[in-house]
Order: sequence, then C-alpha cells, then structure tokens
Amino acid sequence: MAQRRQRRSVTEYVEGILSGDRVVLSQAITVIESRLAEDRALATAILEAILPDTGNSIRIGITGVPGVGKSTFIESFGGFITGLDKKLAVLAIDPSSQRSRGSIMGDKTRMETLSRDPLAYIRPSPAGTSLGGVSTRTRETMLLCEAAGFEVIFIETVGVGQSETAVQGMVDFFLLLMLAGAGDELQGIKRGIMEMADVITITKADGDNVKAAKKARVEYANAVHLFPPAPSGWAPEVVTCSALHNLGLDAIWDSICRYEAKTQGSGFFQQKRKEQNMQWMKDTVAQYLEEFFYQREAVKTELDSISAEISAGDMTGLGAARRLIDQFEGSLSGS
Amino acid sequence: MAQRRQRRSVTEYVEGILSGDRVVLSQAITVIESRLAEDRALATAILEAILPDTGNSIRIGITGVPGVGKSTFIESFGGFITGLDKKLAVLAIDPSSQRSRGSIMGDKTRMETLSRDPLAYIRPSPAGTSLGGVSTRTRETMLLCEAAGFEVIFIETVGVGQSETAVQGMVDFFLLLMLAGAGDELQGIKRGIMEMADVITITKADGDNVKAAKKARVEYANAVHLFPPAPSGWAPEVVTCSALHNLGLDAIWDSICRYEAKTQGSGFFQQKRKEQNMQWMKDTVAQYLEEFFYQREAVKTELDSISAEISAGDMTGLGAARRLIDQFEGSLSGS
Repeated sequence: MAQRRQRRSVTEYVEGILSGDRVVLSQAITVIESRLAEDRALATAILEAILPDTGNSIRIGITGVPGVGKSTFIESFGGFITGLDKKLAVLAIDPSSQRSRGSIMGDKTRMETLSRDPLAYIRPSPAGTSLGGVSTRTRETMLLCEAAGFEVIFIETVGVGQSETAVQGMVDFFLLLMLAGAGDELQGIKRGIMEMADVITITKADGDNVKAAKKARVEYANAVHLFPPAPSGWAPEVVTCSALHNLGLDAIWDSICRYEAKTQGSGFFQQKRKEQNMQWMKDTVAQYLEEFFYQREAVKTELDSISAEISAGDMTGLGAARRLIDQFEGSLSGS
Repeated sequence: MAQRRQRRSVTEYVEGILSGDRVVLSQAITVIESRLAEDRALATAILEAILPDTGNSIRIGITGVPGVGKSTFIESFGGFITGLDKKLAVLAIDPSSQRSRGSIMGDKTRMETLSRDPLAYIRPSPAGTSLGGVSTRTRETMLLCEAAGFEVIFIETVGVGQSETAVQGMVDFFLLLMLAGAGDELQGIKRGIMEMADVITITKADGDNVKAAKKARVEYANAVHLFPPAPSGWAPEVVTCSALHNLGLDAIWDSICRYEAKTQGSGFFQQKRKEQNMQWMKDTVAQYLEEFFYQREAVKTELDSISAEISAGDMTGLGAARRLIDQFEGSLSGS
C-alpha cells in the first residue's frame, strides 16, 4: 500500500519547521500522518524536538453543518486575520471521508484566496484509525504549525459526529456557525454542542437574509443567556456576520481576544491546556486498550455470538462484558 | 470491612422479586451492591433469572442542582404517579457521597410521604468504583425493580458530574428541573445537559415566584426551540410546576406519555434501549481495561514520573501514553 518516501533527518525537519519553511512543514506533517512503523519513531523525535517551541497560538475550533457556509467563512475570517499580519494555519477534520491527495486539492479550491495567502497555511487531517486516530494526528499537526510560527490555528469540523469531542479536547476557543432559521439543516448535529460554544455566529447575514439573521441573533442571545455558566467564566456571545461582504468578522476576532485575555488572566487558559494534554494521554491509552481487547480472536469470536443475544435483549450489557472479559483473560494466560 | 450476611437461594430471591416482595427485593439489591466476590455470582444468577421479566417500565432520569427542589418535586410527582395506581421506584445516584445506611434514612426523611406510600419504593444507589461502578449497580437495581412490577422508575441525579452521561445511558426520558432566574445556583452544572432534556420543568412556580417562573418558561421554550432536533424526533417541552401545591404535574406526566407513545410507535424507544445495552457492555469493558492497565505496578510507577512532565508541558499526551503502553506491554510479557 503506502510506500515510504525519502525522509530527511530529524535535524533537517526541526530546523525547517522552526524557520517556517512550509515545504518542510508539509513533509513533516506527512511523517506525522504516516502509518508506517519506521515513520512513528521519526515523528516522535520531531515532536520532542519542537515541543519547547509550541503552545504560542490561539487554537480555535470552528464547527458548522454543511450548508452553513463554513468554507466561505473561513476564507473571509482567515483573510481578516492575515490582514492583521498574523500567521494562520487551517486544519480540517472530516471524519466522513478518507481524504486523499485529491481532497487536499479540494480544500485549496474551496478556499481559493486563503490558499494563495502567504500568511495562511491550509491542511486537511486525514481520517485514521491507528493509535490516537484523527485527534492525535490533528493535535500533532497543530504543534508542528505552532513551532513553525503560526499564531492562530483553526480546527474545522462538520459538527455531526464524534469529532467535536475531539476538537473540544484540543482547542482554546469554540466557534459555532449557525444559519438563521435553520431547521432540517441541523438534523444530525451533535446534541450539547450549542452549550459548548464560546461564540455563536449567525452566518450569511446579507441581502434578503439580514433581517432573519438579526432576529436569530437576538433569539440565540436569549437562549445562551439561559445556559449554565461555563467553567471558563466566559459568557457565550452571539454575533452575525456576512463572509460575503466581510461584515462582522472584527467582532468575532474581538471576542476571541477578550476571551484569551480573560482566561489567560484567570489561569483558566493554561489549566485547560494542561487538562487537555492529560486527557490526550488517557484517550490514547483508552484507544490502545480497546484495540488490544477487541482485536483478540477469542474476544472477537465471543462478541459475534453474543451480539444477537444483546440485540434480542436476552443478555445485559454487564453479562456480555463479563463473557468478553473471561475470553480476554483466557487468551492472555494462554498466550 | 464488609461482612457477608446470610444469603437466600437464587430461587428464593427470584420468586420473592417476581411476587413483588419488597423485603426480598431490598435484600437482592444488597446482593447487587455487594463488593464481595461470592455475591457477584449470586447477583449474576438472580439477574439472569429475572431478565425475561424486565423492561416493562418507563425509565425517567430526573436531574436538578441542589436548591432546585428536587426532593419536593419527586415527592409530589411520585405521589401523582402512584395516584394513577402505578407502582413507582425511585433510585438516587449521588456520586458526591458514599452513602451509608444513615443516608438511606436521609432519603426516606426527605421524601416522607412517598416513603410511606405502598405503591412507591425508594432506594439510593451507593457510590462505587468496582466493575461497572454506580452506573452498573443502578442499572441492575432498575432491572430488579422492573421484575418486581414497578411500572415507572425515577433515576435521580444532581446534574453536576459524570452521572448524567451514565443516566443518559440508562433512561428512556430525561427530565431537567430548573429554577426561574437561576444564576449562581447553576454553577457547576454539566454543560450540554440542557440540550439533552426531553422536558424542562421550572420548579417552585408558586407564591411570589409564579410570574418569574412563567417568564422563565417562555424564555426556555424559545431557547429549546433553537436546539438541534433530537434523534428521537421529540421536540423538548418546557413547563412550570409547583410541587408544593401539586400544580403542573399532570402536564409533565402527559409529556412523558406522549413521548413514550411517539417513540414506541417510531421504534426509537426500543432501538435506544438496545443501544444502551450495547453501550453498557462497552462501558463495562472500558472500565475493566482501565483498571487492568493503570493498576499495574510498572504503569503506576511510570505515571508518577511523567505526571510532572505532562503538567509542565514538557511532554505530549501521546508521548506520555506511549511510555505507559511500553511499560504495560513489558509487564505483560514479563508476567
């Protein structure tokens, strides 16, 4: 399947990244994303070397269902940020598709202006099921981008699957894009996600849609006001924007800056990052253990035979777990 | 520590439970809650025997922070339900305290009328860290109550910790109690919980508070209207109630009945229970694996030494996980 390309030395990668060389950065990300065992050691060495130079960005999760205008928003908001002379990296997680080189091109097409912007760097995260999965690759890619001097990082997701929990676990700030009067469009969006947003942005507030967007803003503002207070102490804000006409982007950026100042001041910002790092460890271990357990032949065979019983309601989840665990322990002592 | 009391035979427990004998039911729950290894086999045998007689209740999660009037609400709403000639079991999960016999008395005191009601049965769930934890004991207790003929089951939590995820995983219907004008009271409530509610009830809608409660009802109704649609197809409802004057309880019960009819009709009700059962299995396995991993001496020692590095930001979560996994694998092959 995958063929190992020519690799650089650790020093070459690290020096290239730290000097902001995008070609080397991209090559290093390819190493991070590689499933080859020999690349893992290289990836670890690169990461360890650049770790002291990471952490100096604001990490922003951006979520919105298809149709909300996410690409257009990121294109415009990204341009606003590079217009402030800040270096921006955009990482996209799309769990629904195995991204190929083709879809990387797709990302560049859907954000045409931003992809030509010398201060911006766009990179999708491939789906993956190996150790740590999408979440780990995206986190590591984020760290490389930080070491390469990017000051603002967008992590983009579609908001319909498990990816938001993963994104919650790696960003400082969570931006939710919503449409005025969205109904069916929201079908499938993960429940609880609204309560996680630090800012909700009503998109496409232009043309005939301005009035509806303003009305939606008021409604959402009333709604978030009723939410339980966030541990950050930050009260979520609701704004409208028109990515088409570059309207409202400054207010979003202002929110982000105030959020950062407030949580840096309170220590919440740093504390959250520490907890995220610890959680990353736990998640990685949990994923490893899951594979370690469910991929044993004895467990697989047992699971096949009890799935029907579970489904028919003839067995409790606990009973099923006990039978799997018996098989697991048997296979350990037998191996 | 714990001393093993005299136990009955499996047949005695099962016959007692199925005949609705509360003394035997309580004794069986004590077996379920026991941490003694010899009781586990007995518990499993009881559960397997009663399993065909379970499932015939509506399982209702009730959550509200301290101060919301949860006990008074359950007392009144419970009385309303037994007034319909339905048998009601109330199980309380309180992760914040190791409940003792003393606090079981406490539960009976705080729901004095209900505890004397011949159609009601009140039982707190003790905190526990063994296989499956609180969640498993509560699920199993729920199954025993169903076999004993209880038609409505309340699972009560305080809404501030991990318990709601657990409760989400075992109930059919989720009822959230809120106060009008709550601000600080909500501090600490789990984010995302509002979006999970099938009904939000504004409590204490009596006396001087009626106007505020009605206003809150309108505000929350507007808010939930903006939430993403639930997979159940059910649109969450917001009502007010006065547990003190038994007002509004009929509307809540009516919502629950309509919810059940709708989701039974669509098949969502049954599907959700199947998924919950499968999730119970997965959760139990995950918890077992976590203990299996983190309680190994080699892993413990390594974790001690890397915790500081993680905390100082000198190591990624992934790097930390890899070191733990190395120790784990070493300890396996060495054992």
